[in-house]
Amino acid sequence: MPVSEIVEIEGHIIDSLILAKVMDIILAAGADYRILEVEIGKTNADPSHCRLEVIGDDPDVVATVLDELQLQGANRIHTTDAELVSADRDGVLPAGFYSTTNLPTSVRIDGRWVQVEIPEMDCGLVYREDRRLRAVPMHRVKAGDLVVVGTEGVRVAAPERPRGHTPFEFMISDVSSEKPKDLLVREVAERIRRTKDGGYKVLAVCGPAVIHTGAGPAVATLVREGWIDLLFAGNGFAAHDLESNVMGTSLGVPVRGGTPAEGGHSNHVRVINEIRRYGGVAAAVDKGYIDGGVMYECVKRGVPFVLGGSVRDDGPLPDVYANVIEAADAMRYVLPGTGVALMLASTLHAIATGNLLPAWVETYCIDINPAVVTKLTDRGSHQALGIVTDVGLFASGLVEQLVRT
Amino acid sequence: MPVSEIVEIEGHIIDSLILAKVMDIILAAGADYRILEVEIGKTNADPSHCRLEVIGDDPDVVATVLDELQLQGANRIHTTDAELVSADRDGVLPAGFYSTTNLPTSVRIDGRWVQVEIPEMDCGLVYREDRRLRAVPMHRVKAGDLVVVGTEGVRVAAPERPRGHTPFEFMISDVSSEKPKDLLVREVAERIRRTKDGGYKVLAVCGPAVIHTGAGPAVATLVREGWIDLLFAGNGFAAHDLESNVMGTSLGVPVRGGTPAEGGHSNHVRVINEIRRYGGVAAAVDKGYIDGGVMYECVKRGVPFVLGGSVRDDGPLPDVYANVIEAADAMRYVLPGTGVALMLASTLHAIATGNLLPAWVETYCIDINPAVVTKLTDRGSHQALGIVTDVGLFASGLVEQLVRT
Amino acid sequence: MPVSEIVEIEGHIIDSLILAKVMDIILAAGADYRILEVEIGKTNADPSHCRLEVIGDDPDVVATVLDELQLQGANRIHTTDAELVSADRDGVLPAGFYSTTNLPTSVRIDGRWVQVEIPEMDCGLVYREDRRLRAVPMHRVKAGDLVVVGTEGVRVAAPERPRGHTPFEFMISDVSSEKPKDLLVREVAERIRRTKDGGYKVLAVCGPAVIHTGAGPAVATLVREGWIDLLFAGNGFAAHDLESNVMGTSLGVPVRGGTPAEGGHSNHVRVINEIRRYGGVAAAVDKGYIDGGVMYECVKRGVPFVLGGSVRDDGPLPDVYANVIEAADAMRYVLPGTGVALMLASTLHAIATGNLLPAWVETYCIDINPAVVTKLTDRGSHQALGIVTDVGLFASGLVEQLVRT
Amino acid sequence: MPVSEIVEIEGHIIDSLILAKVMDIILAAGADYRILEVEIGKTNADPSHCRLEVIGDDPDVVATVLDELQLQGANRIHTTDAELVSADRDGVLPAGFYSTTNLPTSVRIDGRWVQVEIPEMDCGLVYREDRRLRAVPMHRVKAGDLVVVGTEGVRVAAPERPRGHTPFEFMISDVSSEKPKDLLVREVAERIRRTKDGGYKVLAVCGPAVIHTGAGPAVATLVREGWIDLLFAGNGFAAHDLESNVMGTSLGVPVRGGTPAEGGHSNHVRVINEIRRYGGVAAAVDKGYIDGGVMYECVKRGVPFVLGGSVRDDGPLPDVYANVIEAADAMRYVLPGTGVALMLASTLHAIATGNLLPAWVETYCIDINPAVVTKLTDRGSHQALGIVTDVGLFASGLVEQLVRT
Repeated sequence: MPVSEIVEIEGHIIDSLILAKVMDIILAAGADYRILEVEIGKTNADPSHCRLEVIGDDPDVVATVLDELQLQGANRIHTTDAELVSADRDGVLPAGFYSTTNLPTSVRIDGRWVQVEIPEMDCGLVYREDRRLRAVPMHRVKAGDLVVVGTEGVRVAAPERPRGHTPFEFMISDVSSEKPKDLLVREVAERIRRTKDGGYKVLAVCGPAVIHTGAGPAVATLVREGWIDLLFAGNGFAAHDLESNVMGTSLGVPVRGGTPAEGGHSNHVRVINEIRRYGGVAAAVDKGYIDGGVMYECVKRGVPFVLGGSVRDDGPLPDVYANVIEAADAMRYVLPGTGVALMLASTLHAIATGNLLPAWVETYCIDINPAVVTKLTDRGSHQALGIVTDVGLFASGLVEQLVRT
Repeated sequence: MPVSEIVEIEGHIIDSLILAKVMDIILAAGADYRILEVEIGKTNADPSHCRLEVIGDDPDVVATVLDELQLQGANRIHTTDAELVSADRDGVLPAGFYSTTNLPTSVRIDGRWVQVEIPEMDCGLVYREDRRLRAVPMHRVKAGDLVVVGTEGVRVAAPERPRGHTPFEFMISDVSSEKPKDLLVREVAERIRRTKDGGYKVLAVCGPAVIHTGAGPAVATLVREGWIDLLFAGNGFAAHDLESNVMGTSLGVPVRGGTPAEGGHSNHVRVINEIRRYGGVAAAVDKGYIDGGVMYECVKRGVPFVLGGSVRDDGPLPDVYANVIEAADAMRYVLPGTGVALMLASTLHAIATGNLLPAWVETYCIDINPAVVTKLTDRGSHQALGIVTDVGLFASGLVEQLVRT
Repeated sequence: MPVSEIVEIEGHIIDSLILAKVMDIILAAGADYRILEVEIGKTNADPSHCRLEVIGDDPDVVATVLDELQLQGANRIHTTDAELVSADRDGVLPAGFYSTTNLPTSVRIDGRWVQVEIPEMDCGLVYREDRRLRAVPMHRVKAGDLVVVGTEGVRVAAPERPRGHTPFEFMISDVSSEKPKDLLVREVAERIRRTKDGGYKVLAVCGPAVIHTGAGPAVATLVREGWIDLLFAGNGFAAHDLESNVMGTSLGVPVRGGTPAEGGHSNHVRVINEIRRYGGVAAAVDKGYIDGGVMYECVKRGVPFVLGGSVRDDGPLPDVYANVIEAADAMRYVLPGTGVALMLASTLHAIATGNLLPAWVETYCIDINPAVVTKLTDRGSHQALGIVTDVGLFASGLVEQLVRT
Repeated sequence: MPVSEIVEIEGHIIDSLILAKVMDIILAAGADYRILEVEIGKTNADPSHCRLEVIGDDPDVVATVLDELQLQGANRIHTTDAELVSADRDGVLPAGFYSTTNLPTSVRIDGRWVQVEIPEMDCGLVYREDRRLRAVPMHRVKAGDLVVVGTEGVRVAAPERPRGHTPFEFMISDVSSEKPKDLLVREVAERIRRTKDGGYKVLAVCGPAVIHTGAGPAVATLVREGWIDLLFAGNGFAAHDLESNVMGTSLGVPVRGGTPAEGGHSNHVRVINEIRRYGGVAAAVDKGYIDGGVMYECVKRGVPFVLGGSVRDDGPLPDVYANVIEAADAMRYVLPGTGVALMLASTLHAIATGNLLPAWVETYCIDINPAVVTKLTDRGSHQALGIVTDVGLFASGLVEQLVRT
């Protein structure tokens, strides 16, 4: 049986992003909401006000959500006093104690609202005989102190962002760096599956680090098994993929341990030279010079690829568009119908692709460097989600989710 | 004479943060708004709708604002057709062309709304004889093409963030990395001035890199001239500040060029040892062993400082609280009345301080490492603004703004 | 049958680190060397000179090593001319072409040494009728051009680092960011195995991100299976480990997917409060409040742990040394006999530990942030090797190597 | 009168980079050395041995150098016992105490060498009645303890790097992140001055962040005053430079405060469109459309510039080489005679340029992101020095050094 609770928020809840955060918290927990009443301040000076109902199937989930909402200043409508419980020993709060935020807070005691003197995070609230209410860190609680328990009768003011004419700007990024990565891999795999089911295409944009970090075989598997329909990259990615197939190295470094058979630092230049002799990647595949890897699978399966040139290219491979305007036009030509874009350890080509994508394409940026991820998710690509992790791990995770199951 | 324009937005404008962004854009440009009508979707599925008036003194500013708003899907109410102008040469758009977003876009032509086929950023809109409307990159425009000019008669759909039950979480950070830094310095100086005028205190939290990067003299000047009322730091900051005064080095590296007089790598350990002999920083100042630097100015001016201990401390200085619970309590004791907190190249002590501050204290985090800045601004410290820059530059900038003028 | 080749280097080969690099290249490839003759410049102005023999079992490996050595200016002793092969088509170099460095290079042609005019990396060397030798990028080679093939008769000057009185300083770090991570995991597992076999202890230093990123169960397994003998951490790591056991969350975020049973943001504060009620982690394990996780395994297996306090601690747990001097002394007390130290996503405690370790302890720093890894490997801890990766991946990799096999 | 001292080192001093570090330390302090005797181990197993004389004018400098050398295991030749001084109070070491490293250490007492039991950094050495020698942290010293003072009679073993067949690789980078930046600016200015005096050219490679961070006017001044002879960049840098001249913004953000006159987000696209109408930058300068900025000064002063295209370009400007092979060839054409290259907040074009430069060109990479700096200085560009700082600050610093003095 669904349970529901009503909460209220007041303040600059739109421009301080509080109402958005409130909705996010509710939905992220698997609960739902219904707006009961909302009044938006007419001008920048006027506060707004909202009353909404939180609805969920699991009372525990709803309780958790209410706790989280209070951190945003969304309070239940209180008609009763807060519960006060006496601490039974020094340095320990009573079970179920109200855990504070650093926002202005007041508590209903004996029918009146008492303000917390100096708010501080992660403390208990202690009410002493002087009728003052203090945020007290756990270690300073004394046996016998009256401590607020539960969230009943506690009201928190909504936090405010600095607003107005300022050189600071707010950046919103959906970036996850300290999250368990397998959760995210599963989510992305699920979205890819749904996209393919809907008849849309999956695009992979790959940087050279895909090969350096040993993710090549996983990406090749995804192509072979039909999970990637389109590949954008540069000369470096393709050259190192081919180098790893021919020489077992990437930029001269063995990608699977062992000792490189020959060459070293100039391996990729030698492989590029040979591919130039064959006239292109497809010809080299046909003649058996290339017999595995990402480019090989693209050729074998007929997955279109666009290799855009850049001023730092060695060679380049004959398949590379030396003219960058033509490269972008070729990308434009194959893009329609794309539903998901995976940016794998790529900066230049990922930004170039982001510039071409309609906002409705779901975009995931995977890189070990958070600066790159933030850059990509910020560039007006509203739909981009960033994942800070080792691209090698991420790609094998996708294979496990999409191919091995 | 003030000018005003009315715009409309529709969609998930609360939880996709669009309405907040719209307000931000208007205020950041120095204009103002008035909400005329707002209807918030009752449930997660229902779209919201808002009509607001943009008001400004300068018509150019209002025009700019309207352009920026359209990137967010906030459109003027159109009653007339879009203007179509013929391109006069290949590869060049007509002046005043409508520059596209990657959002779903439609244009009023001959009284009906024509949809752009595949939206793409930074293109022109070309209407051809087949009555289709395409986003065309500049280089592919042909002489004679009919191009949409101006924003009249152009409507853009509001962008949507992925919502619902997802492991991704949105992060909002007010971090500025590629902004001209002197603008930001001026803004922070202004806020400090205002805080002091209001009778509130300014707190500086300093990491050792303040001294390594040569910012010590600037911070010392700020203390001496009365702009800093409270200092939190660790053993490292204080030790290197004292080392730079006694030895001219920080961790053995000369801070002002030239050759260190004696010592080197162990300089800070020697100075700590001497201060231990004196019994503390104040005693060493009194006896003339220390005659300059940040700690010196604090002692001379009676600015309270709290040095919190950490497991990695050498020595430590006698002034350091070896008991970290007592350190935090000491910080709590002096904090009330603080209006601005400057976190200067500090991680541990900045987070510790952030945990203790009420949400109403304006907090600025300055560090050259964006990861640190993001970490600090994310920790539930709603009020924190991050500035990615060299702390040496920032501190001398503050001196220039606050002391030299 | 072992093969050997003699190479020569000349220049500032000590202070430009060339001789060290040469030795490193030889050994890293699994080959060996014997110094035949060495003359070190008496003063900073004098060049040095070295002749050494490269010895290996596999002629291919020796050939590869010679190529790599030439990038450092270590040349074979040439008594014959270079081989010149005519290019058979435009834009393609002959197979086996000599691939250039950007160092001053000369080639023996008709018995005399001809200098390359302007060295450039990754080019071919073309000798034209004007008797001039040019570095030519692949795409500019013409059919009929005479191209240097092989390394016979090619001499490269040793690179020089800027030396002398300069504010620049050279940093040497053993950090691997773009390497395939499973290679490194296997290597570290091997070193741990060898250390344990030698009767030495393995120390793990853990930061809270170990738990946030879902690496907790893997580290717990390593403790249970006897691979970790000593644990250093702070209040945060222990609190989140316990929180994940009791609540299934880390800082309120579910660590294994699903929905948190109760609580949320304040979960860790509640768990700390309960442990304080029990009087400590061991008591809470005994009473069954804690029944899994890293701290649980430490208690069960009698693995000593030291939890050092810091000013940012909530609570803290009763097991935490609030006095940081005592914390460091406790760490000193248990350290003797340690052979390997693993720093897992920890900064503060890792630096503290690094300060206490004798130089002979092998130290591996694992973090997703290269800045942290570099910082740790730079702090005079000569023995520290850095691995930039997701700590969750690394820990499960270790389990796979050490436990599952 | 010059003073000199003789030191000895033993161990794997070449491949553990110790001898190089020793030379670096001596020269960096402004002192000099003379090698007296050197014996390099024939094989990887054999230790090496070196005896050298440190020579300097200032006895204090030589003393400092000797202290620093001992951290590397370079010891004076000791014929006398170490001095032992009794501590006069608890927790304080005697003045001039020997400050420890974490390397194996022994001390000559009563004519025999006593080993320190467990080495630890930054401690004192205490000799107790049990005739054992311990590294004791300052706070644990007791009054009456006999403490080693000075470096006479103290011998330290040279540190060793892990060597042999390992997947770890050593990276050497000359990167300075926590150094006072004005020292480095002065040094670079000095090198530029020397290069110009020698008749060589100075090349600047610029990324768009040069304009975003407000460094445009400083770079323009350097061009105007004849300090920059060659400019490489991409479409983005040039477009934002021109945008800032025409519109006062960079990517729509005002670069000097105030309110943008018109436009906003699409400003750069509009400016590119106009330049396309003029037919190029030079024509737009001639016609007066552009009247300041970096590109303007290049045109006015006849400084050659190469703008290389990339797949992410908007427009592009007519001056951009859309064909990247031609772009690289154009760069090759103008490069000869270059003595110094400044890479200013550029990744793509900096790497491209690094690929083309002979090793003898002094290269300075300036970026706020240490990952970019490390990447650039690592790419086999032996001569590259990295400076982690705000490029805005760096450029105005150069102007102050080169133009205003």
